[in-house]
Amino acid sequence: MTRPIALTIAGSDSSGGAGVAADLKTFAALGVWGRLAITAVTAQDSAGVHAVEPVSVGVVVRQIEVAAAGASALKVGMLANAMIARSVGDALGRIQPRNLVVDPVVRSSSGAILLEGGADVLLPMLGLAAVVTPNLAEAAALLGVAPAATRDEMAEQATALARRTQGAALVTGGHLDGDTAADVLVSDGGDRVTWLEAPRIEGGDLHGTGCVLSAAIAAELAKGVGLVAACRHAKSFTSAAIERGMAAGLGSVSP
Amino acid sequence: MTRPIALTIAGSDSSGGAGVAADLKTFAALGVWGRLAITAVTAQDSAGVHAVEPVSVGVVVRQIEVAAAGASALKVGMLANAMIARSVGDALGRIQPRNLVVDPVVRSSSGAILLEGGADVLLPMLGLAAVVTPNLAEAAALLGVAPAATRDEMAEQATALARRTQGAALVTGGHLDGDTAADVLVSDGGDRVTWLEAPRIEGGDLHGTGCVLSAAIAAELAKGVGLVAACRHAKSFTSAAIERGMAAGLGSVSP
Repeated sequence: MTRPIALTIAGSDSSGGAGVAADLKTFAALGVWGRLAITAVTAQDSAGVHAVEPVSVGVVVRQIEVAAAGASALKVGMLANAMIARSVGDALGRIQPRNLVVDPVVRSSSGAILLEGGADVLLPMLGLAAVVTPNLAEAAALLGVAPAATRDEMAEQATALARRTQGAALVTGGHLDGDTAADVLVSDGGDRVTWLEAPRIEGGDLHGTGCVLSAAIAAELAKGVGLVAACRHAKSFTSAAIERGMAAGLGSVSP
Repeated sequence: MTRPIALTIAGSDSSGGAGVAADLKTFAALGVWGRLAITAVTAQDSAGVHAVEPVSVGVVVRQIEVAAAGASALKVGMLANAMIARSVGDALGRIQPRNLVVDPVVRSSSGAILLEGGADVLLPMLGLAAVVTPNLAEAAALLGVAPAATRDEMAEQATALARRTQGAALVTGGHLDGDTAADVLVSDGGDRVTWLEAPRIEGGDLHGTGCVLSAAIAAELAKGVGLVAACRHAKSFTSAAIERGMAAGLGSVSP
């Protein structure tokens, strides 16, 4: 019996807390074989992003072409610039992956720009995605509106994004005030709304959270888990990973 | 209590079977937090190496500088070319890492050149290494001699390499004929010879074996395990990983 395979298309973060390292650790923890297509190499530590070098477009696409064969799920993270984003979108259009998770990375948690040219270049890719997983700022950037300030606005923005995908949008509300960390999943093309709640962890807004969450969804989809259950499992996994990371003193989630 | 940290300085392999992916999976499986400094991005599958793009020297060094701080062990793998090898050697000379494992990668298991300019550029780095982990072909290339054909010759070459390091050389003999897969570890600067035996696994000459072995040694050293025990644990871990990979139908070791 062969293990399911997931492919991450993302940048590398030298601290190991985000990007392909977080994705590969998450895939492994969830029993999935991880492949990788690197879009950019970065030097990062807890103080911020010190260097970013995009990979040439041809090599990004070549990695995807050879690594997507046989993969049961794909995840897209940092794409660095508009040229890479367009070429990755074109490659995915040719591949037509069944289980594509798009994490629309625009900035690092420290504020550094991780996608030059802005979120608009990601819009064509959304039509290929099983689910897109923005945080509040990323959802607003994709839609060209102000960030949601209430749960109703979160659900509205998730619905608008779900209509642009093949199926679903999960908007993470970790930055909204409240006793719980609530994410909203709108699926079935906008018709089904599911709130995912977890106890708010004090100081839990850690480097790499979005990478781990989207990688965990991709891993669950690769194993054949349905979308709503995959998002629930991924949210639980990420909450536990945040607690592990804090317990280990890493300043990052710890899959 | 914080988790020990290990840093891999190596290339990425899109198949996830070798390079930084194999290293990060190995570190995670052994309970160590993995960081990474990418030297080159490659597109690979079971048919071979389809593309190699070296990272610019400045960004390689910047990743090492930010990621080596606080790391308890470092591992060096694919360095792509002489310019990167020299700069990594210079950076390591400034850092003076306590637990440095050098895997002198020259060619892929499919025969592709992964170090332009040959093995000589790795020689200055050996003086910084706690242990160097060549296979038979790499040991011969480092020493400028023919590959060992007998166990006596393996031990001689390991002794010669141990004299060039701060301590030890582990020459892996997976390609020598015999009922067992025997590796020889020469430590204490050349004075102590330890044979590490494991049952030979039919068809077990898999992609990524050397990466997993050297990463497992680094992980054990990061946890404070002594050198000989670290090499023993790493050999057992790698044998089990080869069996897991074959059982999973991956054509790669499976940490």
